Amino acid sequence: MSATITYALTPVGVVRSSLTQRDEAPKQGTEGAPDAWLDVTPNLVVGLDGLVVGQVIIVVTWFHQARRDVLKVHPRGDLNLPLTGVFATRSPDRPNPLGLHRVQIFELAGSKLKVGPLEAIDGTPIVDIKPVLAESADS
Amino acid sequence: MSATITYALTPVGVVRSSLTQRDEAPKQGTEGAPDAWLDVTPNLVVGLDGLVVGQVIIVVTWFHQARRDVLKVHPRGDLNLPLTGVFATRSPDRPNPLGLHRVQIFELAGSKLKVGPLEAIDGTPIVDIKPVLAESADS
Repeated sequence: MSATITYALTPVGVVRSSLTQRDEAPKQGTEGAPDAWLDVTPNLVVGLDGLVVGQVIIVVTWFHQARRDVLKVHPRGDLNLPLTGVFATRSPDRPNPLGLHRVQIFELAGSKLKVGPLEAIDGTPIVDIKPVLAESADS
Repeated sequence: MSATITYALTPVGVVRSSLTQRDEAPKQGTEGAPDAWLDVTPNLVVGLDGLVVGQVIIVVTWFHQARRDVLKVHPRGDLNLPLTGVFATRSPDRPNPLGLHRVQIFELAGSKLKVGPLEAIDGTPIVDIKPVLAESADS
């Protein structure tokens, strides 16, 4: 069973944002999050070739401040909502605290991309960037 | 710069599929991929509480057969298409070979979920499961 294997995830960049505290970040980008910069590791810049301003992308982050030992949470931190399995929520607390953020590209400047809206806080590691597929709403 | 840090990604389950070879897998689930089973690690089953049959989820996988040293590819492996940065494509070959798969849940049986359509091959590690948000098409 591959569950005993571990894979090494290496950040490809970092989020630069005016949000600095987890408790001040909106739960989702669409809930009033600011624009932010994706600061991509310089030696990976060639991997950005083909991205264009206006395009919608999925940024995959690693919630470095999340708890990985939590399997149930109150959705949105609302104690009035019943405890729910983390895989049925978008809580950052989960075994592998990966975040998916659908954002638009507003500016491309070498290894830096201005995007938004993005609810990830300043310093959040970026682990992948993907285009949104035309034929599917996601993914 | 956090790009020098590495995070340990531990699979939360594995894909059980009739697809066994990367070259027989469709490029995307919507391109004729079969249904498959998500075999979740038994001690994480409580994390599935709240998922229901019919729901659409995002399965995050780790493409264990991908090349991590590739920064440009011909999209869809088509040599007629110009070399493009991997972050502008959905190629499994990328620095962190994470796959995003939007699928529907067809059956829930303890630690096993029947979902589809899913283009990931048999044995592909699952690293996260997330609900699709109502308010956004993705993500």
